[in-house]
Amino acid sequence: MNDTNLRRMLLEFKAGAIDQDAVIEYVESGLYEDVGFAKIDHHRAKRKGFPEVIYCAGKSKQQVVEIFQRLADRSDKVLATRADSAVGEAVCEAVKDAKYHEIGQLITLGWSRSEPEVEQPYIAVISAGTSDLSVAEEAAVTAEIMGSKVVRVYDVGVAGLHRLFGELHKIEDAKAAVVVAGMEGALASVIGGLIHSPIIAVPTSVGYGAALGGMAALLGMLNSCAPGVTVVNIDNGFGAGYSAHLISTV
Amino acid sequence: MNDTNLRRMLLEFKAGAIDQDAVIEYVESGLYEDVGFAKIDHHRAKRKGFPEVIYCAGKSKQQVVEIFQRLADRSDKVLATRADSAVGEAVCEAVKDAKYHEIGQLITLGWSRSEPEVEQPYIAVISAGTSDLSVAEEAAVTAEIMGSKVVRVYDVGVAGLHRLFGELHKIEDAKAAVVVAGMEGALASVIGGLIHSPIIAVPTSVGYGAALGGMAALLGMLNSCAPGVTVVNIDNGFGAGYSAHLISTV
Amino acid sequence: MNDTNLRRMLLEFKAGAIDQDAVIEYVESGLYEDVGFAKIDHHRAKRKGFPEVIYCAGKSKQQVVEIFQRLADRSDKVLATRADSAVGEAVCEAVKDAKYHEIGQLITLGWSRSEPEVEQPYIAVISAGTSDLSVAEEAAVTAEIMGSKVVRVYDVGVAGLHRLFGELHKIEDAKAAVVVAGMEGALASVIGGLIHSPIIAVPTSVGYGAALGGMAALLGMLNSCAPGVTVVNIDNGFGAGYSAHLISTV
Amino acid sequence: MNDTNLRRMLLEFKAGAIDQDAVIEYVESGLYEDVGFAKIDHHRAKRKGFPEVIYCAGKSKQQVVEIFQRLADRSDKVLATRADSAVGEAVCEAVKDAKYHEIGQLITLGWSRSEPEVEQPYIAVISAGTSDLSVAEEAAVTAEIMGSKVVRVYDVGVAGLHRLFGELHKIEDAKAAVVVAGMEGALASVIGGLIHSPIIAVPTSVGYGAALGGMAALLGMLNSCAPGVTVVNIDNGFGAGYSAHLISTV
Amino acid sequence: MNDTNLRRMLLEFKAGAIDQDAVIEYVESGLYEDVGFAKIDHHRAKRKGFPEVIYCAGKSKQQVVEIFQRLADRSDKVLATRADSAVGEAVCEAVKDAKYHEIGQLITLGWSRSEPEVEQPYIAVISAGTSDLSVAEEAAVTAEIMGSKVVRVYDVGVAGLHRLFGELHKIEDAKAAVVVAGMEGALASVIGGLIHSPIIAVPTSVGYGAALGGMAALLGMLNSCAPGVTVVNIDNGFGAGYSAHLISTV
Amino acid sequence: MNDTNLRRMLLEFKAGAIDQDAVIEYVESGLYEDVGFAKIDHHRAKRKGFPEVIYCAGKSKQQVVEIFQRLADRSDKVLATRADSAVGEAVCEAVKDAKYHEIGQLITLGWSRSEPEVEQPYIAVISAGTSDLSVAEEAAVTAEIMGSKVVRVYDVGVAGLHRLFGELHKIEDAKAAVVVAGMEGALASVIGGLIHSPIIAVPTSVGYGAALGGMAALLGMLNSCAPGVTVVNIDNGFGAGYSAHLISTV
Amino acid sequence: MNDTNLRRMLLEFKAGAIDQDAVIEYVESGLYEDVGFAKIDHHRAKRKGFPEVIYCAGKSKQQVVEIFQRLADRSDKVLATRADSAVGEAVCEAVKDAKYHEIGQLITLGWSRSEPEVEQPYIAVISAGTSDLSVAEEAAVTAEIMGSKVVRVYDVGVAGLHRLFGELHKIEDAKAAVVVAGMEGALASVIGGLIHSPIIAVPTSVGYGAALGGMAALLGMLNSCAPGVTVVNIDNGFGAGYSAHLISTV
Amino acid sequence: MNDTNLRRMLLEFKAGAIDQDAVIEYVESGLYEDVGFAKIDHHRAKRKGFPEVIYCAGKSKQQVVEIFQRLADRSDKVLATRADSAVGEAVCEAVKDAKYHEIGQLITLGWSRSEPEVEQPYIAVISAGTSDLSVAEEAAVTAEIMGSKVVRVYDVGVAGLHRLFGELHKIEDAKAAVVVAGMEGALASVIGGLIHSPIIAVPTSVGYGAALGGMAALLGMLNSCAPGVTVVNIDNGFGAGYSAHLISTV
Repeated sequence: MNDTNLRRMLLEFKAGAIDQDAVIEYVESGLYEDVGFAKIDHHRAKRKGFPEVIYCAGKSKQQVVEIFQRLADRSDKVLATRADSAVGEAVCEAVKDAKYHEIGQLITLGWSRSEPEVEQPYIAVISAGTSDLSVAEEAAVTAEIMGSKVVRVYDVGVAGLHRLFGELHKIEDAKAAVVVAGMEGALASVIGGLIHSPIIAVPTSVGYGAALGGMAALLGMLNSCAPGVTVVNIDNGFGAGYSAHLISTV
Repeated sequence: MNDTNLRRMLLEFKAGAIDQDAVIEYVESGLYEDVGFAKIDHHRAKRKGFPEVIYCAGKSKQQVVEIFQRLADRSDKVLATRADSAVGEAVCEAVKDAKYHEIGQLITLGWSRSEPEVEQPYIAVISAGTSDLSVAEEAAVTAEIMGSKVVRVYDVGVAGLHRLFGELHKIEDAKAAVVVAGMEGALASVIGGLIHSPIIAVPTSVGYGAALGGMAALLGMLNSCAPGVTVVNIDNGFGAGYSAHLISTV
Repeated sequence: MNDTNLRRMLLEFKAGAIDQDAVIEYVESGLYEDVGFAKIDHHRAKRKGFPEVIYCAGKSKQQVVEIFQRLADRSDKVLATRADSAVGEAVCEAVKDAKYHEIGQLITLGWSRSEPEVEQPYIAVISAGTSDLSVAEEAAVTAEIMGSKVVRVYDVGVAGLHRLFGELHKIEDAKAAVVVAGMEGALASVIGGLIHSPIIAVPTSVGYGAALGGMAALLGMLNSCAPGVTVVNIDNGFGAGYSAHLISTV
Repeated sequence: MNDTNLRRMLLEFKAGAIDQDAVIEYVESGLYEDVGFAKIDHHRAKRKGFPEVIYCAGKSKQQVVEIFQRLADRSDKVLATRADSAVGEAVCEAVKDAKYHEIGQLITLGWSRSEPEVEQPYIAVISAGTSDLSVAEEAAVTAEIMGSKVVRVYDVGVAGLHRLFGELHKIEDAKAAVVVAGMEGALASVIGGLIHSPIIAVPTSVGYGAALGGMAALLGMLNSCAPGVTVVNIDNGFGAGYSAHLISTV
Repeated sequence: MNDTNLRRMLLEFKAGAIDQDAVIEYVESGLYEDVGFAKIDHHRAKRKGFPEVIYCAGKSKQQVVEIFQRLADRSDKVLATRADSAVGEAVCEAVKDAKYHEIGQLITLGWSRSEPEVEQPYIAVISAGTSDLSVAEEAAVTAEIMGSKVVRVYDVGVAGLHRLFGELHKIEDAKAAVVVAGMEGALASVIGGLIHSPIIAVPTSVGYGAALGGMAALLGMLNSCAPGVTVVNIDNGFGAGYSAHLISTV
Repeated sequence: MNDTNLRRMLLEFKAGAIDQDAVIEYVESGLYEDVGFAKIDHHRAKRKGFPEVIYCAGKSKQQVVEIFQRLADRSDKVLATRADSAVGEAVCEAVKDAKYHEIGQLITLGWSRSEPEVEQPYIAVISAGTSDLSVAEEAAVTAEIMGSKVVRVYDVGVAGLHRLFGELHKIEDAKAAVVVAGMEGALASVIGGLIHSPIIAVPTSVGYGAALGGMAALLGMLNSCAPGVTVVNIDNGFGAGYSAHLISTV
Repeated sequence: MNDTNLRRMLLEFKAGAIDQDAVIEYVESGLYEDVGFAKIDHHRAKRKGFPEVIYCAGKSKQQVVEIFQRLADRSDKVLATRADSAVGEAVCEAVKDAKYHEIGQLITLGWSRSEPEVEQPYIAVISAGTSDLSVAEEAAVTAEIMGSKVVRVYDVGVAGLHRLFGELHKIEDAKAAVVVAGMEGALASVIGGLIHSPIIAVPTSVGYGAALGGMAALLGMLNSCAPGVTVVNIDNGFGAGYSAHLISTV
Repeated sequence: MNDTNLRRMLLEFKAGAIDQDAVIEYVESGLYEDVGFAKIDHHRAKRKGFPEVIYCAGKSKQQVVEIFQRLADRSDKVLATRADSAVGEAVCEAVKDAKYHEIGQLITLGWSRSEPEVEQPYIAVISAGTSDLSVAEEAAVTAEIMGSKVVRVYDVGVAGLHRLFGELHKIEDAKAAVVVAGMEGALASVIGGLIHSPIIAVPTSVGYGAALGGMAALLGMLNSCAPGVTVVNIDNGFGAGYSAHLISTV
């Protein structure tokens, strides 16, 4: 509420350019668009640096298409997560230039894959196994659409440490590292013991039995004996990519 | 058992108007109808102020239809919850004027949408996100069929507080507020810190991973640092609407 | 923010009676008192209808005394919960007229026990067993200090239903009922099936083994098959008494 | 191993009627039939008073048919639990006089419904709701095929206590009572407070959200404040009926 | 409520021997004694076959003494559970002939150790390890004070099956067996596979780490692959002894 | 890294036979093959004594086929676990001599069933019930393809101990025993009390309700009162067979 | 292992300046100091940018003193966490200039409180309640000793949002925000919806009952509906301060 | 029961050397000593290769002393675990040559520390941190008293991998490795990926918050992505040392 708009409006109001109700309305109104089943938060781009992201789970195809279109009307970058292929197709039909990412279950507008050139800052997205790819891609694409460069380092789990050591230099030089792992999630601790940059650990639901749908990896990562590791929800590649972008642009 | 009927019957019995067995039978008999697979509780309207509500989950289409009809024979208001569309259709075919609510998965007889006129007391039903709509509608329709006026305030989650503040006056003036939210369920605490009326918080199963099917939201709401918040089961819009109606008519 | 003060200040500002900074300051400033280790929320009485309540757990004796005094300076009613006897004594020494409630572990200023006279509205506080007394008293005293009349109905658990039936008329006529029970918490469902008023169920940590510190009672109450029951946290007598008062004065 | 057979064989062996290997073989051999994928325990009828019961879950249709036939060859009573209708049909085709119980998901040979005549001892099987019928029938049929008389008292949950009181005399006179309930499972405690006979409580998976697939009812029943209540696994109608039969024939 | 008293009173009332209020009072009054902090349930002996049992945990020494005395005034048998030695001493001082059982943490009046003579029916109480003795004694003494004969078979856990087999004949001939075990609780299944009588399994909190305070044993016993096993709460020796007595006297 | 190769290369480097980059590359390079979606760990056979095993869950049919082929190119033994029949067929089409094991859901190359001849060392794989067969076969085939001889002892659960005793001599003579059991998992403790060799316990997800998808068996096995028992994840037959082979060849 | 030292040593080795063993030793040796009960990791400052931090829990006073001294010998900054006052005193006696922080339970060498001057980058450490102070101070002191400037914003929980809004400008301008909250942990989501910078949420064990020792807050924070929030272990102020410092210096 | 004694006795019996009762008694009698509160299993040394081990938790000082003495009468090696120092002193006073191990909380008779000479087979016991020492020593001493040589490798957690690599050759050459770690337990997976021998992972209760008393480490180890790892209960150093000895002597 520490708002230059408010200051300006107060002066205009004093000058008689606008009336009292306009000020009140400004203070009271939220800057969102009401489409009945949703209130689209157009103010978020300003407040958080990126437009509202569409979480497709639990929304109908029609709802996603409509929200995507409304956001696309006002922004050249739109992101939707947890979109199955039917939703993906529907949006791509409705919105020119939208792209569906099958592995990461994302729909994007205004995204392009962007690997760093020499000396450019970047984020490393690392996955332990092939089964973690979907979550890793969700993180990588999210960071890319927000403007980050991303280096992908996949399938380097601790059962074969030499694979990790072979790629370690790529990870060491990143501004931030996203580490995606299921089962026991030990990769986060191992990388946490080796590099200097902040690490965002993403537990995945890969595993069975006592993996408890990702809880084992989640608990493991929260208890990492290596400092510099923070954690997001199970399978939350989006949140990790988002935070990694924020961190790398602090 | 503090029962004027019993007093009257005792006098009649003493007077010889009725025999001993009639008194015993009165005390022993419950006021319900036995249809084999169920004992329909016709006494409940008197005892609890509203007829028995049909919980459709785990009942066959035929069972629901028969119970609905029996209740409709004795009451102008009937409510069935957790009804899928097949059950909804079957009841609507069998019972004239029954209505199926697709979003809230309810079947009603004797319901109409009822928004408050100026100065009329009402209940506010608030939801955090679009994915919580089904539970919110279950609450709203339940309160309406019981006789309450309802104002719906949807998609005002804490990720965009300005949306909430824009609608806050509607919530502040309600007799009781039902707050429906999944994920971390923080909306209940935020509204609990802002308004005076009793709040019934409904955690929903919206979310994934560490949301644990709604347990995260449930635990969050139970631990709310704001007083005046009570909680019902995950996704229990019916219970929240029911209690909100009771509260608003105390 | 639907605030008559803001409207008045805007007019005064326009009239030149106050300057722009005063308006900004008003909007920005919260109405609280900063004592270093805490920000005492004096605004709460206006916003929530009762002053901030002191949660003593995790605070030092000195901190509680200081906060209690500050609140007592501005309000004739103060409530502190989860106070052990050492804290209770310290406050009673420092603040004339403060009273320590040993069973309920509360400190009050401005409380008096208040049972209803004939026809006066009241809240019923019901406990299942003798071991639940502490939580029940927390609820009863909280409701009383907020201004409610309270009828206490203790030790009427379902293992001896006749004890409950002997007191049922007191419960039936209450505006709201607080039901306090540990172990399996079945009392909430039983009363929920018998009375018309809204019920707030308080699970207690009474029990052992699979009682899981009150989780069994909590889960049981959340799954009550009787409508009209809402639930608060384990041992949260304060929250139940607070909400019951709100409900009974809607 | 306190075995009269062994004593007799030792005498026969001493007398030369049998050789050493026969004794050894007797001690070593278990009395079962090996059909490759299973070792059918024909000794169980003697040891436990009833033949091995077939648990169909996780077995193929062919496996169930074969085991059922082998048991039917040696016993006039056979019981299979958790049988879906396809398995039921297959067994009924293969084994003359086998009967499939659709509600309870059982296949029986040698069963007949048996309600007690006056003064005959019997077991009461009580269910809280219509959705608990399947588990209640599993218990009732199990007790019947083992030789017990059974009285069924269904849909008498605590939300309408008068329904229970109307049937209470049937329950009070039973040798043992099986109480089947989901959600919060309070019915077990209520009946436990009212009757004298041993009670076997069966939690069911009926419910949603914080019912946790029956864990809420299970915990509630284990923590029952009424003595005389013992508990079996969630949805384990078979185990309850089996134990109730044992108890009623002690 | 199927009560011969009520029938008799109605006749007396009709005859004018008693007035209407006496009948009402009879119906309304529960048969309990109100001592302020507790309602002592004197009716229970009639309804459940044994007087109310005092659960000492969470009660003060004074409260236990007073309740014990009141019960001792009306009954020659009194039982209090979970009594530490201070409470035990206080009761023994106040009540002549009361006895404190240190291992089982019980106070009894009217108990004597009673092993069965030849051919007398009895209950077997079996424990897996020395650390389970306290719970086993709670079960044994409870059964004895209720009137059962008890045979104790202690320290026969499955790590040394030959110890169990050496005592098996004692267990096989019991009317009911109480099996007390911590850690993984496998003893219940093993005995369940060997004997014919009903078994009540008591998980104990003996163990560490993944024993989870007795939850591992509890879950194991609930999932026993042997039929005829029912379960009570962790460390609930009282409940097991109580039910075993009921079973053995069905 | 205690590596004779490195020593040799250093000498060659000093001798000028190879240049500095070759040494660096050797140290940095992991010995794996990058196929885009996976880094196949060819070094594992040397490091761990067996090639990388393919975990099919969460991999596409095409991915499994490709990895299987790459491994088959370099090794005469390949193992893939958790393969459904579609994946199994696809691999068998693509790789001559590959074999699909339907019960154990495995694909093997270079496996043959191998029961021990007299005096040959072997592993015993024991299962409690017919429903545990799939996990038991996963263990047995894994041990066999690694080179062990295996004796299978199936369906000898504790509900019928005589079946177990009939086969006990086979188990006693094994170098290591794999014990596969669901429900309460008591078989591990019973065998642990009877034999001398190391035991690997595999809990299975067989069961329902409080079996909690195998957690009850897992907890039971971890708390086994018999020493010499170690445990693997729920349904992890592969891990048990793998470790049993290692143990038997120590 | 992408190590300029190794390259240099290889050249020296080729030149004959060092022998083969020196190279091998370099590769093999870890850079740590072995004091018997611990291997002090002196290499960490180089690898991770800060010396090894001493976790005092579970270590004796003597062990902590010795490790602290060894680290102080090589570094002008040392940090020890979870130190009770006895340990704190012992270290302060042994190491000149060491300082014990009572609230945060830390021992530092080389720390000074450092609030930012105008335009200097800083970290905001925010706490919801007075009871969360200890964890918040652990975070703040950790960040300060690593070299960050810190602004503390304490006691601004969501029950009184105006307190938060009054301090919001301090939080908005931080490079990174550490949000410390117990109970339901909603403060993280609320701040997450309001500011642009990366947020590290620290759940605390403040609360009771269903707070489950901090699990409710942890789950709530992991499920935050606001992006840009990552989470550390319950009460892990150290980890949050450490990561916040890393982020603010990326 | 495949017992040469039985065969011999049968022949003697036939020959008249012994009577029938002797044979029966032999079969029936377990080989244990009954001291009232315990049945000491003297048969175990023969059956399991090592005498019964005394688990001191939950036993009185007197009980431990008595059992220790009885075992010492028959065996030159005795082991007691989880003994606090009071118990340790009492035993050492009563039994000459008994030794109390303070760190590992063990009492031994007949133990001596035994590190392997060159080429001797040995077990490696590895711990992640200084706080894990107690559990590691329990494992090491257990293996030693059973006859194994042990190499201890302590404080080599994954936060400083170079410490581990510096000691790796000691671990690689062991017959079996015991890996002791708390927090996230990642060390088991890392070593599992590096060595060939069987690994027994011991989770410890070291950690706080989401470590859940060792459950995080336990789940992590059960889900290890590296094959060859089996797991024992939290803090169960004894079980790990016991199994490691068995494995190394297969």
